[in-house]
Amino acid sequence: MHAEIDTPALLLDKPKLERNIKRMAEFAAGGQAQLRPHAKTHKCVEIAKLQLDAGAVGITCAKVGEAEALADGGIPDILIANEIVGPLKIARLVKLARRCRVTVAVDDADNVRQLSEAAVAAGVTLGCYVEVNVGMDRCGVEPGEPATQLARLVEAAQGLSFDGLQAYEGHLQNVMPFAEREARAKLDMRKALSASQHIEAGGLKVGQISGCGTGTHTITGRLPWMTELQCGSYATMDAQYAAVGGATYENALTVLATVISRPAPDKAIVDAGLKAITPEFGPPTVLVRGAEWVDFSEEHGVVTLAGPAQELRVGDKIALVPRHGCTTVNLYDHYHVIEDGAFAGTWKVAARGRCQ
Amino acid sequence: MHAEIDTPALLLDKPKLERNIKRMAEFAAGGQAQLRPHAKTHKCVEIAKLQLDAGAVGITCAKVGEAEALADGGIPDILIANEIVGPLKIARLVKLARRCRVTVAVDDADNVRQLSEAAVAAGVTLGCYVEVNVGMDRCGVEPGEPATQLARLVEAAQGLSFDGLQAYEGHLQNVMPFAEREARAKLDMRKALSASQHIEAGGLKVGQISGCGTGTHTITGRLPWMTELQCGSYATMDAQYAAVGGATYENALTVLATVISRPAPDKAIVDAGLKAITPEFGPPTVLVRGAEWVDFSEEHGVVTLAGPAQELRVGDKIALVPRHGCTTVNLYDHYHVIEDGAFAGTWKVAARGRCQ
Repeated sequence: MHAEIDTPALLLDKPKLERNIKRMAEFAAGGQAQLRPHAKTHKCVEIAKLQLDAGAVGITCAKVGEAEALADGGIPDILIANEIVGPLKIARLVKLARRCRVTVAVDDADNVRQLSEAAVAAGVTLGCYVEVNVGMDRCGVEPGEPATQLARLVEAAQGLSFDGLQAYEGHLQNVMPFAEREARAKLDMRKALSASQHIEAGGLKVGQISGCGTGTHTITGRLPWMTELQCGSYATMDAQYAAVGGATYENALTVLATVISRPAPDKAIVDAGLKAITPEFGPPTVLVRGAEWVDFSEEHGVVTLAGPAQELRVGDKIALVPRHGCTTVNLYDHYHVIEDGAFAGTWKVAARGRCQ
Repeated sequence: MHAEIDTPALLLDKPKLERNIKRMAEFAAGGQAQLRPHAKTHKCVEIAKLQLDAGAVGITCAKVGEAEALADGGIPDILIANEIVGPLKIARLVKLARRCRVTVAVDDADNVRQLSEAAVAAGVTLGCYVEVNVGMDRCGVEPGEPATQLARLVEAAQGLSFDGLQAYEGHLQNVMPFAEREARAKLDMRKALSASQHIEAGGLKVGQISGCGTGTHTITGRLPWMTELQCGSYATMDAQYAAVGGATYENALTVLATVISRPAPDKAIVDAGLKAITPEFGPPTVLVRGAEWVDFSEEHGVVTLAGPAQELRVGDKIALVPRHGCTTVNLYDHYHVIEDGAFAGTWKVAARGRCQ
């Protein structure tokens, strides 16, 4: 398999990617909300451009460094759906806002003042979404007075524009069964609606209510007041999202590995370990019938073999579907793009390692 | 803390690193075995050179790509303690052997033949260690006939030199209590001795018996027939090795993170998640009294705060000791070197991402 590709390598099936992008674009077009796909999974300018070409209004990311990499690639409109804190990062943020439209999440009054000062000094306007805690219990303020006060502070601040709410239901993406995910998502996302109503009752307009992930988009993406969808993993998919019900989207992402040892008839050791495929949601799926991943070590994977899989020999290459695409992609500098089964060049993982 | 360093950043305390390197060099000098430190943890030419300056005979690594990065930095003698399989990698291996001394592990007859052909064609000699399974049950052959036959095959192959045995007791590094680790290590490493005796009974000389890790070096590093120690983590250390009894070595490695949200008096959200600090052995240690890491998400860490730790504010920086240094270092392009508490420049993580 792919004799010209050395391993471990990150493979991206382009037709599957394109079909996934088309399907999510059609889903968004069938509702009232615009699509602003999250790039923290794919970290790739080429994929972001395919998403924009399919109708996305802009791109979402998590870090200033990711946004810089996307802007370097020509992406014109970027939401950083995260709090950007500290003078070094804020300086980069306002510099970035000179060359593309930038929106950022806020949940703290001092941070708002610092963003405002820096934006004024740089002569730019930063869009701001007030982050509302819809149950993830991470960043974000509570709906009601806290969210409304912060929205007013943003609106009053020079150099900032209050553009809406960041309201991501990340805690629900993997809830099973789906009916429970649906019930909880509808319940929890009322906090976003409530925050919006409280703010608007005070006379401010809430432009966007932005959130939603691949695991919840069929639920929260159809709430009539959601205006912006940040789904990201749908483009490449991974074994985790496939396991929790993402059958609509095809797995476009694999790690290609080589069998480097066959210590027993029922066991193969491959050259992909923790530095080539991440473990946090569980083992990768081995795309060989009868083969199962049983252990990670740092530089190796241990695979058990049954039936015809026992024909695997040292030097054979096998494909693995990572359980968690986002962190696995972050280990690689390039995608090896596969088209109609053949190697069709590389795409840069431009935001690889951009955790700042 | 470190106002000039943006976060997340990988910090390396140089005096602690230097003391660790000196201590392990002294340990090796006090016994019969030479030190060949593993670079899969630090992945850094500057650190490898400090180790060589302190008396190490060469460097160990796990991948051809790591070896290339070290050779680019001028490291003259490299053991790749792993099976190198497939025509693309073998071509790189023999090319590398033109510019530095290269030794590689083998456990398969076909692989030995392919290495031999490539070495002959390239006009180089590859050192080979036959890998013996001492109980890790990953790569390697069994002691006795299998190891001896492979050693003979290597010795007879043109372009290859049978230089000894790879015998790493990786399965024992974390065994607690220490007395059990000691008993098992002494027992399991008899397999390496047995393999060596069987080979030498057949008339071949076993140059090196190479293995040993930071967690076992005081045990197996004092076995009178061990000739080469591959300990690596001791240089930087991590919270895992500290937890299993590495008090001799100081923690030189931290991840610096920023508090980006304070959603509750007893909770802080920091800007380091799974892409900045790896989770596989457990949570990082927070170097703030009363603060405890309770959850990873992809871009965030959740820290609970008690007592004076509740004074932490948005924008404050905190230091984290990663539980697993090897995979955490692999997420970063640079170390920020700290000397006497102050930032003293960056060192490149030259082998970052070199999983091929």
